Amino acid sequence: MGNKNSELFDYVKGFTCDFDIVTGRSKVAVATPRTLSQLKNMYADEKAVAEQLAKGDPTIYEYYEMGAPEDDGEIAIGMSILHPGKVGDEYHFTRGHFHKILATAEAYYCVSGEGYMLIENPEGDWRALEIRPQHVVYVPKRYAHRSINTGKTDLVTFFAFGGAAGHDYGTIETKGFRNICVEVDGKPVFKPNPRWK
Amino acid sequence: MGNKNSELFDYVKGFTCDFDIVTGRSKVAVATPRTLSQLKNMYADEKAVAEQLAKGDPTIYEYYEMGAPEDDGEIAIGMSILHPGKVGDEYHFTRGHFHKILATAEAYYCVSGEGYMLIENPEGDWRALEIRPQHVVYVPKRYAHRSINTGKTDLVTFFAFGGAAGHDYGTIETKGFRNICVEVDGKPVFKPNPRWK
Repeated sequence: MGNKNSELFDYVKGFTCDFDIVTGRSKVAVATPRTLSQLKNMYADEKAVAEQLAKGDPTIYEYYEMGAPEDDGEIAIGMSILHPGKVGDEYHFTRGHFHKILATAEAYYCVSGEGYMLIENPEGDWRALEIRPQHVVYVPKRYAHRSINTGKTDLVTFFAFGGAAGHDYGTIETKGFRNICVEVDGKPVFKPNPRWK
Repeated sequence: MGNKNSELFDYVKGFTCDFDIVTGRSKVAVATPRTLSQLKNMYADEKAVAEQLAKGDPTIYEYYEMGAPEDDGEIAIGMSILHPGKVGDEYHFTRGHFHKILATAEAYYCVSGEGYMLIENPEGDWRALEIRPQHVVYVPKRYAHRSINTGKTDLVTFFAFGGAAGHDYGTIETKGFRNICVEVDGKPVFKPNPRWK
């Protein structure tokens, strides 16, 4: 919403749009970047954030938000490209969100890269679903979700959710997820988030 | 949904499932085949249908129906594999459907193959959206939709629609689409369906 894509695509007559099956990139649709400065309060290691920002403001991920009307019956789709890397020992992630209509699911199909989908519901139940190339990941209703890239290449996922679902980013921005994913001896490990409120 | 997939996948806790990005096939989920005999009243050339059926009952397409609960907030996803070929001069197609809740959209991401998404609303507005590899096709609300394979390889598409949308196959089975897609001089051409009611 609020970007060029809502004018590019016709939800009344139907449309097509290219998305490269390896890179996730479109020649037509416009991607939205998210840089470290926009996520700086979400990583656990504040010192590492400050050190990275002193050198520049890297893009952590990009996504294609296709401007679907926020109505029942539409399907919001797009592609997410999460670049590899770490902030301190914490793997790159998307900021993550609940849906505004809490009881709505989201489906992902991973075309390349690897990592985890961290999910957590308001009652505190959580798990990390593996994201692997050529696999679907189904995020159930009522679960906040965040992609985490634990690989060495872009993590590229096609996503789909109900048009009316909307986004609640604020809850995660304020509270964080209960767990974070860090590298220990070269491998991803989940541990309690020291900044969780 | 009356197949094994509804027991395999956990819509409460979330799940993952493999889908080969070229063939569309899963090692875990179970595909449903649709054979020519199940579609025999839908192709225009009744003589060609009878001739093919005299030799056997070929599988025209297969799809993965993942058993999503038919509820608001779920996302029904799966993979469709439409084999190449013709019945008479008419290209292979899926039977096509409206959604039971008419005003619900469906999104496709084509991973391999080529063809058209034929769409038609109850008022008779219709068009054929190109399906190309690495392209999304968005079927708008209120439009029946049918995939047509005009290529030489399987047409493989990942699909997503609202869990409550449901399927109305009966309208198309009874009336047909207003147009059919036939090969003329080696190229696909749309023309009025002689069997349309």
